[in-house]
Amino acid sequence: MALLEGRDLISIFDFSDREIEAIFDLADDMSKHTRGRLGVADGMIMSTLFYEPSTRTRLSFESAMLRLGGEVISVADASVTSVAKGETIADTVRIVESYADVIVIRNPLEGSARVAADFASIPVLNAGDGPHEHPTQTLLDLYTIRREKGKLRDVSVALVGDLRHGRTVHSLAFGLARFGAKVTCVAPAGLEMPAHLLARLEHEFGCCPVQYPSLAEIVTNDEVVKRRPGRQRALASEVLSLFDAVYVTRVQKERFESEEAYQEAKSSYAITEKMIRKARPDALVMHPLPRVDELDYNVDRDPRAVYFRQAAYGVPIRMALVAALLGLRSVRIGKARKGEYKPKPRREVDFRKFADARCGNAHCVTNHESYLKPQFNLVEYAPGLVSCAYCDQEMPMPAGAKRD
Amino acid sequence: MALLEGRDLISIFDFSDREIEAIFDLADDMSKHTRGRLGVADGMIMSTLFYEPSTRTRLSFESAMLRLGGEVISVADASVTSVAKGETIADTVRIVESYADVIVIRNPLEGSARVAADFASIPVLNAGDGPHEHPTQTLLDLYTIRREKGKLRDVSVALVGDLRHGRTVHSLAFGLARFGAKVTCVAPAGLEMPAHLLARLEHEFGCCPVQYPSLAEIVTNDEVVKRRPGRQRALASEVLSLFDAVYVTRVQKERFESEEAYQEAKSSYAITEKMIRKARPDALVMHPLPRVDELDYNVDRDPRAVYFRQAAYGVPIRMALVAALLGLRSVRIGKARKGEYKPKPRREVDFRKFADARCGNAHCVTNHESYLKPQFNLVEYAPGLVSCAYCDQEMPMPAGAKRD
Amino acid sequence: MALLEGRDLISIFDFSDREIEAIFDLADDMSKHTRGRLGVADGMIMSTLFYEPSTRTRLSFESAMLRLGGEVISVADASVTSVAKGETIADTVRIVESYADVIVIRNPLEGSARVAADFASIPVLNAGDGPHEHPTQTLLDLYTIRREKGKLRDVSVALVGDLRHGRTVHSLAFGLARFGAKVTCVAPAGLEMPAHLLARLEHEFGCCPVQYPSLAEIVTNDEVVKRRPGRQRALASEVLSLFDAVYVTRVQKERFESEEAYQEAKSSYAITEKMIRKARPDALVMHPLPRVDELDYNVDRDPRAVYFRQAAYGVPIRMALVAALLGLRSVRIGKARKGEYKPKPRREVDFRKFADARCGNAHCVTNHESYLKPQFNLVEYAPGLVSCAYCDQEMPMPAGAKRD
Repeated sequence: MALLEGRDLISIFDFSDREIEAIFDLADDMSKHTRGRLGVADGMIMSTLFYEPSTRTRLSFESAMLRLGGEVISVADASVTSVAKGETIADTVRIVESYADVIVIRNPLEGSARVAADFASIPVLNAGDGPHEHPTQTLLDLYTIRREKGKLRDVSVALVGDLRHGRTVHSLAFGLARFGAKVTCVAPAGLEMPAHLLARLEHEFGCCPVQYPSLAEIVTNDEVVKRRPGRQRALASEVLSLFDAVYVTRVQKERFESEEAYQEAKSSYAITEKMIRKARPDALVMHPLPRVDELDYNVDRDPRAVYFRQAAYGVPIRMALVAALLGLRSVRIGKARKGEYKPKPRREVDFRKFADARCGNAHCVTNHESYLKPQFNLVEYAPGLVSCAYCDQEMPMPAGAKRD
Repeated sequence: MALLEGRDLISIFDFSDREIEAIFDLADDMSKHTRGRLGVADGMIMSTLFYEPSTRTRLSFESAMLRLGGEVISVADASVTSVAKGETIADTVRIVESYADVIVIRNPLEGSARVAADFASIPVLNAGDGPHEHPTQTLLDLYTIRREKGKLRDVSVALVGDLRHGRTVHSLAFGLARFGAKVTCVAPAGLEMPAHLLARLEHEFGCCPVQYPSLAEIVTNDEVVKRRPGRQRALASEVLSLFDAVYVTRVQKERFESEEAYQEAKSSYAITEKMIRKARPDALVMHPLPRVDELDYNVDRDPRAVYFRQAAYGVPIRMALVAALLGLRSVRIGKARKGEYKPKPRREVDFRKFADARCGNAHCVTNHESYLKPQFNLVEYAPGLVSCAYCDQEMPMPAGAKRD
Repeated sequence: MALLEGRDLISIFDFSDREIEAIFDLADDMSKHTRGRLGVADGMIMSTLFYEPSTRTRLSFESAMLRLGGEVISVADASVTSVAKGETIADTVRIVESYADVIVIRNPLEGSARVAADFASIPVLNAGDGPHEHPTQTLLDLYTIRREKGKLRDVSVALVGDLRHGRTVHSLAFGLARFGAKVTCVAPAGLEMPAHLLARLEHEFGCCPVQYPSLAEIVTNDEVVKRRPGRQRALASEVLSLFDAVYVTRVQKERFESEEAYQEAKSSYAITEKMIRKARPDALVMHPLPRVDELDYNVDRDPRAVYFRQAAYGVPIRMALVAALLGLRSVRIGKARKGEYKPKPRREVDFRKFADARCGNAHCVTNHESYLKPQFNLVEYAPGLVSCAYCDQEMPMPAGAKRD
């Protein structure tokens, strides 16, 4: 059954839970073919269109296509090319679709990959549309947990670091929530997970992350530790043992008011060699990379430090996605699980009478590509709000707007 | 007969009319192989050398080479590389020829591609040498007409928009003239086709385009309409029906004195949804892309809007060219047509005694690469003028210059 | 015997003399396959990681990989990508090693390629780490002499031009010295070979180049000429005949105090058409390219001008290296020659008690990548000095440092 053939991957919400699991099954298979050329994509061409450079993501996609047996035509930095001549995303992809069989796009405008998918007749994969979505990163993160722990459901995962600005960690939170994981959030003051995301996590997926200001605080509050207060100090460095996986994210100095504030916060989320040494043997330390100071280089040698394996899983995941969307490999979709997430048509809000209705997000693609008509959807978990159909930014529904 | 093997394509004037038609015949064949890998270029390498970035042209060439079965090594933006170290075009191509089997070059200096061809021992294709030539664009434009109309001779084509600055539209005018097309020019005041090009069109190819300041004006002057003045208004939007193809070109705001002047001129050349709706079923709207405001996005859906197909024909055309120049496919050259254009040796002017004779074009390659000796040819249609053998810029012949 | 399989090439000092000769034997074989696809690297991927652009070196490596039958994923200019996000070399190569089978790296930090090799589990080839090393250039230079002269030992080579700043010519001097060549240095005042390199050439390889301020001076001092002073003038332009090969290097205006000083110096090292015309038939004029003014374009046509062939040998040399390091072809290592150079473990200096010991070279990778511990080796030929284990910069050993 090749139900994924011809589809796009713009957001992880484009795929149902069992479609994601089918991709993971295929990635298990592809893992055996990450050296050599598999030959299933013979004669197929991938075009990478990167409007901002990203070495790792682009190389990973290109490696995946070559390992499958296909070829690549590559734009490593489109920011200085046709864009300067005023070529729109819609026009670019309608031209490039005649040069290639699949498009991988990264563009800093939020919602831009959706536009590419709307206009292209060949499959489009989103390799990052600004701070909005980066679905293949989320899939490889989830796949790493499934692969390393043998399961994805009912795992306990701590998200650590800057949870406010990270697109990666936001998407991962939703991915984990969809599969019923227990999520814990650890972020320094000011860098907590945004309230509207927490609201959506709870409303849509019944996921209510416990929140902590520091790693030490978790131990202090851990039930086991509470019962044995004498062990509190000893356990402070064993925080990694409380979770199946600790997902650390990059914390940038610029987010803090002063060097002092940064240095002070650092100790609250940084993973050190000492911490991992005391963690249980099957704990995972994950990181999307690149890192700054939050992950000591001395941790690298430890087998529980899986972040380089995590990056390496990017190849089989992207091989599986490309193979599935191009229909090169049949994908077995399992039976629907009760209550599983399925992409559903949104109830669109008719804004036609608000001729000047615009998305409030200055970086939304609709505010940069003039041929696009702004579109909004009702926000189910927050009556009175609408969200942009391209960048998902929420805004109040204008009085008198008609619902379809 | 592989008479094209080993040749270069720097200008459309390098090929005779029947050679161009032979390339088109081969492109018809290649159109069946624009998916998959044809396998005729196995083991061959194309090197793209782009000294200024161009996503579409480069990707189109690279896709063509991969579809043929070859491989690509690519320089997407050489402007910051060896050039900064002072490497000349002559040296670059003599090095790259040992890495590849065919070179595709884009360089902003006019005449630069000719220099590359002069020094390289492998075929060189010009992918644009500044405002001078971009022959594969011209060939795909001509091919689009032949393909969509079933013929190239005796078609009636309107060239619309900025006819003063566009290299694309200048080359196309000569291409059309060579095949006996009727050419009509529609340009706002100040953006008309340059007089010296019109002179050459007439002298060399007997082509005298009628010129109009706006699309509406054509209808006003149309013979049919003149006889039935009542229909004039109705027909104003049917202007597209008067031509086999309307070739619209990009009009840039910067060419106008003010925003008002731009807005006023826009209505005189812009193609709208309304206009195409009323056009006859077999009219073609063409555009080299990218567009600005001169072509409404609502026109895109119409089957007469062929500009995306036009861009797509770039692949079979470039496949055909590469296959022909590399001798991978035999090309059947038809019989010579009476009066057809054939490249002929120019009568060179001996400027040796004018030691300081230089081309007057500051962007000519001879003014930037010191090892080049300026060369000039007599201008046949304008006695007393000579033209630069590299960039074709015309200038007065110094008194006393010797003709060979 | 594939003793080179899995090794890195960061410096020519990583290979013994007979390993280099084995590579040259393999390059002789590869020379028959520089067109088409050899097929030995089927399914293998090379990742080029260029942190500063270099058209020729990158294309040459990519062409070599494609000719071998492999594929390429390419970063033409990483300076604006992950680096800006703070990704270290160590992290980058540990990620890229899961995308590719071999890494080719160019990075302006001295010692950076060594870091890449230390952290990557796949072979790493240094394509230039700032002014430090560029070993494939040195190997192709040596190979050119062996190929064109039929031997490498006991040749007489003049190094001409800027011998102070050129990394290429420094490495070549050591390469020639290792194979017992007679080296002559010709450099304008101020651009002579640095004293510490001359000291090392003598100490390690017993090579004492004669030094001249100009080409003319060589003739004046030539034994043959001295005996027949009447011929001195006539022979001035025959200087090329005194050597098996004359290796000319780029001289940049910026190195001189004034335009006048540059023009004056130029005549002392520039190779003209006249000089080569009078040279003996088997003299070689070599140049690493790009050139400035030191090599007349009129010399190009002469068969003794081998610099384009020299550049072309870059492909078989790089094919041989990649094939050897990937274990795709068995390499026959000859018997050890008496006194030949072999890489040997350096006697490392224990700097641990000098907690703030740093390499004095501001461009050394250890001063830019914070996870690296500075390391120093004893300088054998200069007691009291240590050299950085990454960039080879020499500095005085701090009083009281312990030797291992």
